[in-house]
Amino acid sequence: MSKEDKRNKFLSVFPKLVDELTSILTGYGMTADAVQWYVNSLNYNTPGGKLNRGLSVVDSYAILKGKKSYEELSEEEYFKLATLGWCIELLQAYFLVADDMMDKSITRRGQPCWYRVDEVGEIAINDAFMLEGAIYCLLKNHFKKDSYYVELLELFHDVTFQTELGQLLDLITAPEDRVDLDKFSLDRHSFIVRFKTAYYSFYLPVALAMHAAGISDERDLKQAQDVLVPLGEYFQIQDDYLDCFGKPEDIGKIGTDIQDNKCSWVVNTALKLCSPEQRKVLDENYGRKDAQCEQRCRKVFEDLRIDEHYHVYEEKIAEDLRALIARADESRGFKRDVLTAFLGKVYKRQK
Amino acid sequence: MSKEDKRNKFLSVFPKLVDELTSILTGYGMTADAVQWYVNSLNYNTPGGKLNRGLSVVDSYAILKGKKSYEELSEEEYFKLATLGWCIELLQAYFLVADDMMDKSITRRGQPCWYRVDEVGEIAINDAFMLEGAIYCLLKNHFKKDSYYVELLELFHDVTFQTELGQLLDLITAPEDRVDLDKFSLDRHSFIVRFKTAYYSFYLPVALAMHAAGISDERDLKQAQDVLVPLGEYFQIQDDYLDCFGKPEDIGKIGTDIQDNKCSWVVNTALKLCSPEQRKVLDENYGRKDAQCEQRCRKVFEDLRIDEHYHVYEEKIAEDLRALIARADESRGFKRDVLTAFLGKVYKRQK
Repeated sequence: MSKEDKRNKFLSVFPKLVDELTSILTGYGMTADAVQWYVNSLNYNTPGGKLNRGLSVVDSYAILKGKKSYEELSEEEYFKLATLGWCIELLQAYFLVADDMMDKSITRRGQPCWYRVDEVGEIAINDAFMLEGAIYCLLKNHFKKDSYYVELLELFHDVTFQTELGQLLDLITAPEDRVDLDKFSLDRHSFIVRFKTAYYSFYLPVALAMHAAGISDERDLKQAQDVLVPLGEYFQIQDDYLDCFGKPEDIGKIGTDIQDNKCSWVVNTALKLCSPEQRKVLDENYGRKDAQCEQRCRKVFEDLRIDEHYHVYEEKIAEDLRALIARADESRGFKRDVLTAFLGKVYKRQK
Repeated sequence: MSKEDKRNKFLSVFPKLVDELTSILTGYGMTADAVQWYVNSLNYNTPGGKLNRGLSVVDSYAILKGKKSYEELSEEEYFKLATLGWCIELLQAYFLVADDMMDKSITRRGQPCWYRVDEVGEIAINDAFMLEGAIYCLLKNHFKKDSYYVELLELFHDVTFQTELGQLLDLITAPEDRVDLDKFSLDRHSFIVRFKTAYYSFYLPVALAMHAAGISDERDLKQAQDVLVPLGEYFQIQDDYLDCFGKPEDIGKIGTDIQDNKCSWVVNTALKLCSPEQRKVLDENYGRKDAQCEQRCRKVFEDLRIDEHYHVYEEKIAEDLRALIARADESRGFKRDVLTAFLGKVYKRQK
């Protein structure tokens, strides 16, 4: 099945989940206007991204079950796995609706951020809560009778909390309006990206697939996590690198991390390597909404050859991860290929 | 034990729970500034209210277990029940931090709303998420091994979602800045207050106590809910009544529902009873930030004798609830006294 077909098959599940959630609301006697509001919020905020997280739940499950293609999964099996995938997409929607408010962002996925839509405004906070709430409605509807139901609930609780912790550290380290590079460090960057991104984007899809496949020994979950969390960190470091050094025609946007005072791998690496003079330039120009200031920071990054440091980092981490994957124990049914597939999607990504 | 002693005993548990949550963060390697931020948010937003919801978990449990006083509960038993009580208070904190942002409120419990505290601002959204997250951390730490663990998780999920639904309907029915009394009705008011308030404030404490006491047959949970949800509605109707007709020296504040365009029982009852001329007065004056407009609305409410209608409502609902409680089945161990105690706290309350 082509990548496009896989995506369309996955997308075709979502309206059924929206119908299910609608039934819960109408079952409570909820009025039509409020039901419509919730449907609009679900449809506006949940699909529309790349859906990598959701798709990788199904992909990982297929690998764990030794299936060569999606066609070997039964309809019912596919639907359950896709539901877990959509639960991650709902979790992401919950975070993004809130993050956009906290970051005062303007657009998301080519449309206005939800809180900027007419009549929505601050109600978006409650809408974010209800996107999260949808996860537990769906898990109850589809997994209540499964032996691993409580593990799914705890996994979502734990990963949600970890992501919120990462978001908290990011928010207090790099507030958009108060630049203080003393707060930045590569260690702090590592913590932020592991917690804010890696757990829910990399570990969660695989852990969900492992529970569904019945390959969920603590040791197997740990060896997945030990690869996927650093891999997620690598992915985010790559994202930071591309924001500064990627071509706009490749990454589909113009990077704004410098002007937005982002606690990015690029600036943290520069802070580690720079001279006192270069530090002064960064202190005076980083995080300013000004193209000239941005240019001065870029000059420091170029002089320090941050891009070369990135390539060295990339080769090193990819090698480390390959070695770690090679050592993974398959004796209880875990498959190294799950991890290799993830690494393959990240390594030398240009967009 | 006096009411004050009960409250102090309950309050003394909270710092231990904060320590537990702190340990989780430090266990993750979280930096000291972020740990301190979370501790501040927990302490600022969680205690400080009347704690009725939290206290009534322990009270209900004691009644169900046939204990005459708190002293008959073991230390460990008390701590577990108080932890459940604090989980409701955390749930409430999560809602209130967000509600205050959505309502653009200024103060809460005599101090500035959390989002208005220096340096907090929009970060309060993530802080709200983390107050909710604390619930599942604590339940996992203290109840994972109990047979009713998954029931506790589902109860919190369900009630959280119901509260958010009620909040959604309230927000789209009565936006602060667009008055449209056509949207109001007593039916809608009933739905809003049952979902937004009654489930988490009245049903949840008792349902938690019932699970902990092992008296959790579906039929028993249903008979508790069948009394406590209408009782919660009565409580909120009373709140609406007192906002308009209560004495400021009794209720400790000056009512603002009229100027705030609240979908209150008072205005909904007036809308049902009013003449076309009175309706015109309400259409033109309700929900305006103006003392004269407020006075004109009050005049309509007085002319319609809404206070007398309230007293009729109060006697009728109290009688209905007493009859419902009298019919409750105690054969499986449920105790009518749990419900009587709640009704006693609400009936003819003046503040």
